[in-house]
Order: sequence, then C-alpha cells, then structure tokens
Amino acid sequence: MKAVFPGSFDPITSGHMDVLTRASRIFDTVTVTVMHNARKQGRHLFTLDERLDILRAATGHLENVGVDSFGGLLVDYMAQEHKGIILRGLRAVSDYEYELQIAHLNRQIGEVETVFIMAATRWSFVSSSMVREIASYGGDIREMVPRASAEALRLKYADVYEERENAAASARPDTRTGAQESAAEP
Amino acid sequence: MKAVFPGSFDPITSGHMDVLTRASRIFDTVTVTVMHNARKQGRHLFTLDERLDILRAATGHLENVGVDSFGGLLVDYMAQEHKGIILRGLRAVSDYEYELQIAHLNRQIGEVETVFIMAATRWSFVSSSMVREIASYGGDIREMVPRASAEALRLKYADVYEERENAAASARPDTRTGAQESAAEP
Amino acid sequence: MKAVFPGSFDPITSGHMDVLTRASRIFDTVTVTVMHNARKQGRHLFTLDERLDILRAATGHLENVGVDSFGGLLVDYMAQEHKGIILRGLRAVSDYEYELQIAHLNRQIGEVETVFIMAATRWSFVSSSMVREIASYGGDIREMVPRASAEALRLKYADVYEERENAAASARPDTRTGAQESAAEP
Amino acid sequence: MKAVFPGSFDPITSGHMDVLTRASRIFDTVTVTVMHNARKQGRHLFTLDERLDILRAATGHLENVGVDSFGGLLVDYMAQEHKGIILRGLRAVSDYEYELQIAHLNRQIGEVETVFIMAATRWSFVSSSMVREIASYGGDIREMVPRASAEALRLKYADVYEERENAAASARPDTRTGAQESAAEP
Amino acid sequence: MKAVFPGSFDPITSGHMDVLTRASRIFDTVTVTVMHNARKQGRHLFTLDERLDILRAATGHLENVGVDSFGGLLVDYMAQEHKGIILRGLRAVSDYEYELQIAHLNRQIGEVETVFIMAATRWSFVSSSMVREIASYGGDIREMVPRASAEALRLKYADVYEERENAAASARPDTRTGAQESAAEP
Amino acid sequence: MKAVFPGSFDPITSGHMDVLTRASRIFDTVTVTVMHNARKQGRHLFTLDERLDILRAATGHLENVGVDSFGGLLVDYMAQEHKGIILRGLRAVSDYEYELQIAHLNRQIGEVETVFIMAATRWSFVSSSMVREIASYGGDIREMVPRASAEALRLKYADVYEERENAAASARPDTRTGAQESAAEP
Repeated sequence: MKAVFPGSFDPITSGHMDVLTRASRIFDTVTVTVMHNARKQGRHLFTLDERLDILRAATGHLENVGVDSFGGLLVDYMAQEHKGIILRGLRAVSDYEYELQIAHLNRQIGEVETVFIMAATRWSFVSSSMVREIASYGGDIREMVPRASAEALRLKYADVYEERENAAASARPDTRTGAQESAAEP
Repeated sequence: MKAVFPGSFDPITSGHMDVLTRASRIFDTVTVTVMHNARKQGRHLFTLDERLDILRAATGHLENVGVDSFGGLLVDYMAQEHKGIILRGLRAVSDYEYELQIAHLNRQIGEVETVFIMAATRWSFVSSSMVREIASYGGDIREMVPRASAEALRLKYADVYEERENAAASARPDTRTGAQESAAEP
Repeated sequence: MKAVFPGSFDPITSGHMDVLTRASRIFDTVTVTVMHNARKQGRHLFTLDERLDILRAATGHLENVGVDSFGGLLVDYMAQEHKGIILRGLRAVSDYEYELQIAHLNRQIGEVETVFIMAATRWSFVSSSMVREIASYGGDIREMVPRASAEALRLKYADVYEERENAAASARPDTRTGAQESAAEP
Repeated sequence: MKAVFPGSFDPITSGHMDVLTRASRIFDTVTVTVMHNARKQGRHLFTLDERLDILRAATGHLENVGVDSFGGLLVDYMAQEHKGIILRGLRAVSDYEYELQIAHLNRQIGEVETVFIMAATRWSFVSSSMVREIASYGGDIREMVPRASAEALRLKYADVYEERENAAASARPDTRTGAQESAAEP
Repeated sequence: MKAVFPGSFDPITSGHMDVLTRASRIFDTVTVTVMHNARKQGRHLFTLDERLDILRAATGHLENVGVDSFGGLLVDYMAQEHKGIILRGLRAVSDYEYELQIAHLNRQIGEVETVFIMAATRWSFVSSSMVREIASYGGDIREMVPRASAEALRLKYADVYEERENAAASARPDTRTGAQESAAEP
Repeated sequence: MKAVFPGSFDPITSGHMDVLTRASRIFDTVTVTVMHNARKQGRHLFTLDERLDILRAATGHLENVGVDSFGGLLVDYMAQEHKGIILRGLRAVSDYEYELQIAHLNRQIGEVETVFIMAATRWSFVSSSMVREIASYGGDIREMVPRASAEALRLKYADVYEERENAAASARPDTRTGAQESAAEP
C-alpha cells in the first residue's frame, strides 16, 4: 500500500519526521506532499521551493520516501495515479477532532481513506508554528526539527540569532582576555 | 416557545438545515438570524444580502421559520419583542466548549437561555468554512449545502468550476464525437 | 412542547434542579422520570421509591413539573402518549460525548429528539456520585442538593454524621460552660 | 503489511465491521483477535467461543480476514510470527485518549506500532455495551450489528424479545379476527 | 517560591484577578508580566503602556504582587534573576491542551516549571477577547473585569457606549419631564 | 508553602515520582498521603500498609517529602495542622476534567486550593491501573514504576513472572547447559 503524507511543512518538525520514519516501515512508499494555495502564499515563513528543499534534505536517508507538492484539493491529488491512502500524525485532542473532520470529508468527497499514526510523546508539544515562534526570538530549536529545518530557520532569522549570540558573548565574563590582562600585569 | 437560530451562515450548510428542520418541529417559531458586524464585513465570502437571500430560498418550505439579521450583541437582539430562547446546533467537542462559553455569557449579560440540538452524525464534518474551501477549488459541495448555497457558491467561483469542467472534459475520451467520426468514415 | 427529563436521580442535585427550573420556563410541561433497571437495583444508594419521594418533595413548587418512573428503554417510554422531547443537562466535556452518543441512539432507534440545557457554572462540579461520596464521610452537602436530598442523605448516613458532630463538639472548647464558671467566680 | 485488530468483541458491531472492511482493503491480511482474560470471564455477555463463532460468521465474506484469540498481553501476541501492526478504530474523543495511551504503551513495552482508522460517522454512537443494553430490553439492534451478532443477541435475550412481541401483538387491534367475528354475525 | 504570571492582559479580567489573588496567598511573590511582541503590536486593543497602567491599578491592593513586561521568549525572562515558576490559570479543556503544550515547551527549552491554578467556575466563560467583543458593542462588562479594565474599555469605546445610552434614554418614557409637562398644564 | 499529594498509589508510578520530585523543588514540604476507605478495601491490589511501605522506600531520598495516610474526606485532612495546598499531577484531558471537578469541590467544601503540575510527556501513558494490568500478565513494568513498586508487583505476581520466565528459558536454546554437556564429552 502506498501512502501520502500531506501538510504545509513550514518547516518539517521532529514530530513529522517521527511519523514519517514509522510510516516508511509500514507502507511500501510514502510521499510527503506540500499542499499549497496560491491565495495563501504570504502566510508562510518559507516559500514552497524552500519547504521542498528542506524536505528533500531531511528525508534523503529514507529510501521509500519521496517529496512532492500540489496546489488544489487533496482528493484531486489522491485521485491521480492510484496514490493509496492519506497518512496523518496524531498528537493532542484538538488535533484529533480537526483531523477526523478532514478525514471524513476526504472519504465523502473523494472516497479516500485516512490512516493515523501517533507521534512519540516527546514530540507532543512540537508544532511548526511553535518552532517558528521560538526561532523568531532566536531560541534554540535544534532538538525540535531536523537539521535542514534548523539551518533554514537560522538563516531566516540570522539577525536575531546573531544579536542574541553577541549579547550572550558580551554578558559572559571574558576569561581568556582577563587572563591575558592579568598576565600582562607586572 | 419561540427560538432564534443565530450565526454568520456564510453560507448555510446541510448541518444548519438539519438543526433548523428539527427545531421547527419543537418550537412554535424559529428565526434564523444573521449576526453581522460592520467592522468584520470583509471577512465573509457572501455579503449580508446574499446570505439573507440564500437563507430565504433554503428555508422557504419551512412554514414556521423566518429569516432576520442583526448588527450588535445577541442579547440586545433577544431583548426585543420577547424573542424567546437561543437555539444552537452541536457537533464536535471543540464546538461544544465555545458554545458553552457563549451560552453562559448570554445567560449572564442578558438572562437569555440557550437550547442545544444535535446535528445528525452525517453532517458532523461539514462547516461553512470547509465548504467554502472546497468550493474555492471547484470541488463538489452539493451534498453538504442546500441547493441555494450550492448555486451561490457555483456563481462565486464560476471561473474555477469552469476551468475544472473544461479540464475534465478534455481529459475524457469523447466517445460520442469519436463514434460519429468513425461512422462518417466510408 | 412537552419534555421528559430522564435520569437515575440518586439523589437529585442542585445542578439537576437548576436545569429543571430553567426547562420549566421553556417547555409546557417537564416530567422528571427515574429510569430504573431491576437488574441494577443494588447499585443505587436510594430505592426507587425513596428517589421518587425526594423528587416529589424537591419539585413540588414547580407547577408544570411532574414525577414519573420507567423500567425499560427510554425510547419505549417516549413512545407512550406523545411524550415530546428528551431534556438533558450539560456540564463538562466528558458528559457531553456520552450525552451525544445516547442522543444519537435515541434518535435512531426511537425517532426521539434530545434537547440540551446548560447547568449554571457553579454546579459544574456537582454530581450525584460526588454528593454520595461526601455524605458517606459526613461532609456538608447542603448547598449541592435540594433540602429533600440533604435530609435523605442525612438519614442514610445518620451514624457517620452523628459521630462527626460528636467529635466536633468534644473538640470545641465549651465557652458557654466556661462563661458560667467565670460568672460563678467572685 | 499484516494487521491485527484486537478487542473483546462482545459482540462485534457494525462499527467494528466498517473498520474491518476498510482495513481489509489497505492491509495484506487482517486478523481479528479476541483478547480474553480468564480472571474477567464473568464480565462478558458472550463466552469466548460464542464471540469467535459470531466473528467467523460475520467476517466469512472478507477473504483476507482471519479470526483468532489470545489470553495475555497484546505485545506478547504481536511478537509471535511477525504479526505486523495493531489496527484500531476511532470514534469519539474519549475513545481517542484511551487508545493513544494503550498505543504508546504497546510501542514502549513491545515496539509494536498502532495504526488508526475512522469508523463512518453513522456508527459513531454504536458500541458493544450500548448494543447489549438495548438488547437486554428487547430493543431493535439489527442495524447496529452484523446479522450474526443480532441473532446471538436475540437468542441470549429470547424471553425479553418474546415478551415484548407478545405485548405488541396484544396491543394491536386485531382487525382480521374482528372482521371474522363480525362476518360470523347473522 | 516566586511566581511569574505571564500573559497579554488585553485587558486583565476578573478571571485573571481571581487566579492572581489565590496565587498571592500561595507564593512569596507573584509578578504579572505582560509578554509583548513588537511585530504583533497592532493586534492588541490596548498599548503595552495602557495594559501596564490597568494592571498596576487593578493589583495595587495585593502587597506581594508586582507588574512587569518583557518582549521575548518567556524562558529568557524566567532565566533572569531566579524568577521561580510560571503560574497559569486554567479554565476549559481547550485552554488546557494549549497550556500543557506551552508548559512542556518551557520545561524543555528553559528548564522552567509551570504551576496551574483554577479560576473559579463563575469566571469560566470570561476571556479578554470576549470582553473586548462585548465592549465593542457597548455591552455591560463591569462584572467580568476589574474596575480599571472597565474604565479603560469605557473610554476606548466611548462613542459606542454614549450612543447606546442615548438610545436607551430616548426609548424610556421620560417620566420626570412628563411630570413637569403635566404640572405645567393649567 | 506546604503541599499534600493525595492519591491511592496502588502502587506509585514513575509519573507520580516525576510530579513529586518537581514539587519537592517548589514547595517547602510535600506529604504524599494515601487516601483510603475502609469500605473499598477489597478493590486495591496492595493493602494500605504495603502501599505506605512502597512509598517510604520510593521517596526516602527526597528530604522534604513525607508519607502519610488518611481515611476520610480530603478537606477534613487538609483542615488539620495547616496542611497548605493540594498538589495534583496532570496528564491527559480526561484526567483534567475529573481533577478540576474535585478541585472545585475541595475549594467549595473546604476552602482548600489545588495546584497542578504536569508529569513529563514520557509518563503520559502510565497509570497505576495500567501497570497492574501489565504486571498481572508478567509484563516488564520496571521503567514505569520506581524500584520499590516493581519489586512489590514482582512478589504479588510471582507465579506469573516465574511461569513466563520458565517459558522464555525453555524457548531459548540453552547454550550454557549445551556447553557443559559437550564439555562432559570425552
């Protein structure tokens, strides 16, 4: 059975990676598909191309995982070339209700089945929006996202991260310089 | 007892219709009232007048159901002319908490009671926003909304639906024409 | 419209009374019906007759409210003599899901509609089982139940309440006696 | 990928059948496994053998679906002969949290993955316990369970169903007999 | 133990005040900290300075409660000068999940603990956004917020409140004037 | 501030330990109190004394943590000797609603405040009942409970664990014995 893992992936998180890795052991192939909407372009941090690049870098080691994108209804995408089932990760209850609503809809309008897999509990508090929020303040998000996402976020908020690092550096008592100075003392 | 069924109805769905039809058998009269807010005008797909037109067309067959609109606090509306109780439909849990919050508020600030009726399970995944999203891609929403809403959505997204139909038409092998052509062959 | 308010009422709480009082202003008549099951007899604190007596005492002041009992399926009860709609009170989310499940069931097997009314927020933590638990330790439950329930619980746990009152009395410094003694002092 | 659909199936419902049928199109094989516990024997309506018989009758038409039973930890069962993944159906939110808890547990203690599929919305109110409750009063449960379950419940509660049918028969004005009698009149 | 009560407080409600007052009896000191974000400035009704003024007026009577603000990650704020624990109020379930998510995050990225206190049930339906919505229509919000918030909202929506009061005044049969007029009659 | 951590602790889990350890850093003292009920004695796996022994062994390393028991209403216990606040751990949503209900109750009948702390996400699926269930089949519960609980469960289900280990041993090709035998060969 083939699976499609749809989402906006802005950017892909460690929770997504966890679901994807587990799914790659269950299904014959898994395609990570960025669903995009020309009218909502401006609402994302990363462009479609940036998100696809991050996804390719983050999933390159998973042999049966591919990356794709689609601008339209998911059911229209699923109807092409026998795409199989829709794969979704589950975390909290609020997720769940929205996910069920979408899944029932896709079943009704497209006769496509949705299969759910749980993310590990340690990722239950990680979401793309939370990660973007933390990165926008220069916070450390390296455990919450794969390396490719972390690097892209670091670049996107380069000024914030630099300012923060400079502040941390100046706040630290500079032991090396201090040692030199005391060494210079007669 | 008279009932008021307030909402934004942008546009009315089959779920709303289901609640309304059931309520019309329980209460003496039911008034469907579009609550609107001059400051939020731009956030709706249909204008107030369009929504009222759709509502009148969709509820015309229900004898004790009327259509109205109000720009202000629901409790102010309910205070006019002994409006009776507020009627709300219930679907999922997230609905429910928000609904309870609003209902407690209306009880406190206006001493108005709210009565809840369940939509049928088959409408549990249908919402106005979901319907608008699907229609914006030219998807088939005819089962999810009354005919008046479907026609209005078809008009609003006429270009998308036409494009989609043309694409479907050109993708289909045109058997009828083909048959004629081969019949024309000597 | 007539309404039936079904439950086990073991015993009726202030939350039930709140829902009942509000409903009596919305519906023409409300019948509080104790649903009982011969096979589950032993699981209740109060017998069916005791529960009916408490209900009659607690609702006597509500003119359009009656008391009844039934041993069977609610839909069979509702089918008798045009009973109207089922009335249920709503508190928290866990309530809600169970209530929806039962309501959908009664709609499917008996074509009976269920209408929900909220209990006031101050009763959101009160349930019959919680009240029974507190009373079993001699705790003060007088604000959580109508007077008739409080008196019946006081009788049912007479030994616990007496023991607790005796303990409290002996723990209190007996000021009155002390005052007499000091008064006797020259 | 092989799937195991574990449960107590006391008895199997139309909701279970819906999940099973959908899963049989997604996975190579699905084994419905009755999990039983010698210490909890008395808590079930149907014996293990009865439940297995009903399951075999209800799933006989599904080619890649088998029936099995196990008395122990699910992870021990899954460890035998490469059983694949655990399959669970999802309905409401309360289901969901318990299901997530069990699924995380099975992942931790047995490194077994759980995959969730939604039951159709029309079965969202059907559960084995609800069905048993209705049948115990002689209610009509034929739409809520497959034929094999309905027949087994009819047998288990034969006296209740007969009593109910006799009551219904005597309550009906017997026009045919009446007609014969009047015809016999001179 | 010191506690920080972070939020946007746009403006502070009676629910916030309830949590704050209870917390001031549990913790050595409580600092109410307005978390602000230069990029989201326009989304608030009150400016940062207005919100701080309201907070100071509303909490002046609580001796161990201070007011502060911070533009950045909460964990960065907590890291300064041994701030202690994060304090959050809890109301409904939707609150809860979001609160848990944030709390797990703050524990992971900043090793800061979050402690939750319940607001009284009577405030369970009050939120800053609900209060702003009602005030924007000139509704009565005096029970839902402390006096300082009520006055600030009254000023912010002065035109709406005046219009509403004028309308109410002209709708009322003006008995005093009428009495004067009839007194003027010969 | 002093805190009381009440529960049945049948037995204490790693989730409880996590909450307790965090709380011991926030509050001056934490008393773990086993709430027991003479009438519900038979429903527990461990006797009150066994549970207290396990608790003492499991919490011995936490200096400001004590162990106690009480047979009665929690509010009566809290009223003795200025016990401070009630401490509860939070996991999932179903927990949460029940916890809120109890907390509101204790606030109303005893004017006692409840403070909530989250268990780490990795314990979100662990509960005493789940642990008892797994142990009753001889499953490995060592990561889910402190060592004292694990040893007590191992003793309580000694026969099951032995049977399981014997089965595992006989299933394993016994290399050691094989080696001895071959060593015995001339």
